[in-house]
Amino acid sequence: MSNERLIYLPLGGAGEIGMNAYVYGYGAPGEERLILVDIGVAFPDMDTTPGVDLIFADITWLEERKNQLEAVFITHAHEDHVGAIGHLYERLGMPKVYARAFTGNIARGKLAEYGVGDNAVKICNAWPDQVDAGPFKVGFLPISHSIPESSALVIDSPEGRVIHTGDFKLDETPLVGEAFNEELWKEVASSGVRALICDSTNVFSHNEGRSEAVVGPEITKLVNESTGMFVATTFASNVARVKTLADAGAAAGRSICLLGRAMRRMIEASIKTGVLSDFPTVVSPEDAKNIPRENLMLIVTGSQGERRAASAQLARGKHMGLTMKEGDTFLFSSKTIPGNEKGVIHIINSFSELGVDIVDDSSGLYHVSGHANRPDLLKMHEVVNPQIVIPMHGEHRHLREHTKLAEQNRRKGVLAVNGTMVSLSGNAPEVVEYVETGRTYLDGSVQVGALDGVIRDRIRMALNGHVTVTVVLDENDDPLGDPWCDLMGLPEMGRSQAALQDVLEEDLSQFLNRANGATLSDDGKIEEALRRVVRQSANDEIGKKPEVTVVVSRLT
Amino acid sequence: MSNERLIYLPLGGAGEIGMNAYVYGYGAPGEERLILVDIGVAFPDMDTTPGVDLIFADITWLEERKNQLEAVFITHAHEDHVGAIGHLYERLGMPKVYARAFTGNIARGKLAEYGVGDNAVKICNAWPDQVDAGPFKVGFLPISHSIPESSALVIDSPEGRVIHTGDFKLDETPLVGEAFNEELWKEVASSGVRALICDSTNVFSHNEGRSEAVVGPEITKLVNESTGMFVATTFASNVARVKTLADAGAAAGRSICLLGRAMRRMIEASIKTGVLSDFPTVVSPEDAKNIPRENLMLIVTGSQGERRAASAQLARGKHMGLTMKEGDTFLFSSKTIPGNEKGVIHIINSFSELGVDIVDDSSGLYHVSGHANRPDLLKMHEVVNPQIVIPMHGEHRHLREHTKLAEQNRRKGVLAVNGTMVSLSGNAPEVVEYVETGRTYLDGSVQVGALDGVIRDRIRMALNGHVTVTVVLDENDDPLGDPWCDLMGLPEMGRSQAALQDVLEEDLSQFLNRANGATLSDDGKIEEALRRVVRQSANDEIGKKPEVTVVVSRLT
Repeated sequence: MSNERLIYLPLGGAGEIGMNAYVYGYGAPGEERLILVDIGVAFPDMDTTPGVDLIFADITWLEERKNQLEAVFITHAHEDHVGAIGHLYERLGMPKVYARAFTGNIARGKLAEYGVGDNAVKICNAWPDQVDAGPFKVGFLPISHSIPESSALVIDSPEGRVIHTGDFKLDETPLVGEAFNEELWKEVASSGVRALICDSTNVFSHNEGRSEAVVGPEITKLVNESTGMFVATTFASNVARVKTLADAGAAAGRSICLLGRAMRRMIEASIKTGVLSDFPTVVSPEDAKNIPRENLMLIVTGSQGERRAASAQLARGKHMGLTMKEGDTFLFSSKTIPGNEKGVIHIINSFSELGVDIVDDSSGLYHVSGHANRPDLLKMHEVVNPQIVIPMHGEHRHLREHTKLAEQNRRKGVLAVNGTMVSLSGNAPEVVEYVETGRTYLDGSVQVGALDGVIRDRIRMALNGHVTVTVVLDENDDPLGDPWCDLMGLPEMGRSQAALQDVLEEDLSQFLNRANGATLSDDGKIEEALRRVVRQSANDEIGKKPEVTVVVSRLT
Repeated sequence: MSNERLIYLPLGGAGEIGMNAYVYGYGAPGEERLILVDIGVAFPDMDTTPGVDLIFADITWLEERKNQLEAVFITHAHEDHVGAIGHLYERLGMPKVYARAFTGNIARGKLAEYGVGDNAVKICNAWPDQVDAGPFKVGFLPISHSIPESSALVIDSPEGRVIHTGDFKLDETPLVGEAFNEELWKEVASSGVRALICDSTNVFSHNEGRSEAVVGPEITKLVNESTGMFVATTFASNVARVKTLADAGAAAGRSICLLGRAMRRMIEASIKTGVLSDFPTVVSPEDAKNIPRENLMLIVTGSQGERRAASAQLARGKHMGLTMKEGDTFLFSSKTIPGNEKGVIHIINSFSELGVDIVDDSSGLYHVSGHANRPDLLKMHEVVNPQIVIPMHGEHRHLREHTKLAEQNRRKGVLAVNGTMVSLSGNAPEVVEYVETGRTYLDGSVQVGALDGVIRDRIRMALNGHVTVTVVLDENDDPLGDPWCDLMGLPEMGRSQAALQDVLEEDLSQFLNRANGATLSDDGKIEEALRRVVRQSANDEIGKKPEVTVVVSRLT
């Protein structure tokens, strides 16, 4: 008994913003009973993950211990917390999944795509209810964020109480969903908290966070001042914002139309699970077409410039029969996530070409963050007053800064990136193991390891182009006819002003004519040699060394 | 004579930030004598231009009229204004190039890479000197910017005076280079200005611009407070900033070491051309290694997170024998250009892992922009008091906003994007023609048209992977042996848990066995059919349709 321990092990989210996945365990070393908090996705980009659909934390460690896994708890329904539940459910050994009603509704939708029934997800009430999960008792403690029903987890173990904040802000007027209830939090913390595992994303924002309630009057004013069609985008999951936008539109006598699958999905889930009431009546896109534009408000997906979302389609000209034009207004009631700037700017310029007036958040009037800023983090530390602060959900720079912040205020901070197993037992937290972690790519319908080389090869083809070389050799290893090349992603002509294909084929032909039997009889040697000829010859011609596939056909 | 006209035609820069290239002409329609103002580059990205080295304006229109081209004038030495001079010099018909000393030094370096001698660039004095260029007289009117010797162009024609601002800010204390001299500008404008062609990049910045002089005291304070090694990055061409950094370091008793080719190149050019004096003595990287870190300041390239620059190399561990560690400070005395966020953040996190303290510009203390903000643009309009304002150097949104700004202040504004030929003759400006424009990619050593399909194919391979299919057919069009596949950038295994290659080969083999003579005897048909088999089969297995190259070898 004495060697049992309480451990914390982030598999994702501690070293990036996205793909949250945090393991807690209690038991004898190596035999801990485990729970997983959140199982989210991160999003790919052309620079590092071309063609990839989604990114998950590598859960191999957990998969190998799935019989130790008691349950999965989902703090809230953002994709970076719940998005991987369907894709990884089977690999996790089909565990029990616990969530509150709205979050559970979204999780069930994701599991249904893999044919998993609704009963996989158990719907929980908020604190003071608790769920038994092996050695743990876990409760959902309401906290405000930019999505309904976000919850911190109160994780009780034989070693004491841990609080995992999930994503949060300290908002006493969140409009939809529960307000931050300082008294309740103090009460929960009053018995002593061993560790606070705490959201870090906004640690570099030095001002106190602003309430969701502050944007309503500004949006209302903007809508009232606009004369043409009014279109607004925000994250679909920010139900409070969608409601604020819709209320502002309705108050101005505009009909509300929701565009984009996610937008409709989130509002439906909110109404169904009771987190949203009093949402204005919406009209279909078909009906919207017949409404005078000055009486219409569209609330659309695509705040991050996503190519296929409603905002991008409107920017390209038309979506569901609706078009924007001179005199219309488009509002980004959102911030641009780093990396998405070019996509967003592209849309703004397209709207500019249509004569649409764009209002973005540069004024700070039409968006507030869903995360706790630096002063709010300090307040959270004070309210919970834990023995240890472990920053989570952030890049290394956020975790480091948050750790410093805790330590500046005389708390024990632990900088634990993905794979760092921290024991919370004993007198002081202690790193007891480094676990191999990484990323898994969902690529089409297949899960690929980030280090498998698949994506590396794609990036190389994107940078360098590709040449297929074909050579046919007869029974005596003599070339039968000339070698030929197929080029993809390469310029047609190079330095010598002849077709690149002809130059390459000529050089290959000359090489083959000179090649000796030892080379020609060995597939490996001939492939390597021909690859080198192509890369050298292309480099001379076009200043680029392509990727090369050599196909040797032998007549035997 | 009466039908002669003065025209303005942007080929690049009016619809993007980057690749500036503006044509002015005077003469009978179609026979105008032309000058080109600036010939810059834009920078590629993985999303749209993987593997591309640089982007230029498509100068085909000008190339076809190179015998009408009198000269090229370069306003300043930023890459987006001078970067393409070497690459396009021959296509432009080897025109005369005019620039002031510092700019000319940089231009000569670029031309030298193409074997063009220094005498191609004529060094000009500042206003009131003027250069004759056919019907034009052109003078270099000093203006402040973030690089020495930036100049507006005063372009006199028989139709009157035009002022082309180049990039500018209104800085009366720029530290290096000439201050904005309002009196001189008023004097130049006093005889009447037909059109002001004006920088637009900061039209959305609502505060008055700040002088270069404001950052010095803040940087000095920061350097004095830091205890370990101090490393700072900024644009190498921002010579004033480099000097401010070096002065702050020297004043704190630190030895200064410049890292990165561009950094040394710019300082050398500045000293050689006399725009910079009193630069602190620098030490070599070799010597720097032997200096205690608390006595050392590095000024390095790579403010935009460029992978090969000195900052990125230091972040990865070591550069020129120098390493950073806990207690050191890294300052971004720069802003991140949209699109570069991920690269910069990556470096910041790498430094964070090393324990280095990062100071960026989020406080606004350590960087000022080199461009005129909205109030400064208005002031420029007032000082020059032109009949017409034509916004240039900006994305569509900037040009549109700047046009509106001019019109709100009762000036005639013209929104002219790339390819819009505007006649500045007659009572009002008039769009007289739309010229086909676009982009040219420097890809390795070859210039490729943006619409040639080369890059599109690379992007497809990056997104979808690539399969080479090889089939050998005998004299009777019968398959000789089985078809085979080479995969690149694709997962090894798919849904059926067999090697993807085997599944594809099996499906191809089955198809060939069923194929009729009409298909097998026709290369086009067989290629199309096999491509379809691979894409369908891969889609079933891995949820992805790869790019396919089919190689049919026929024994004849």
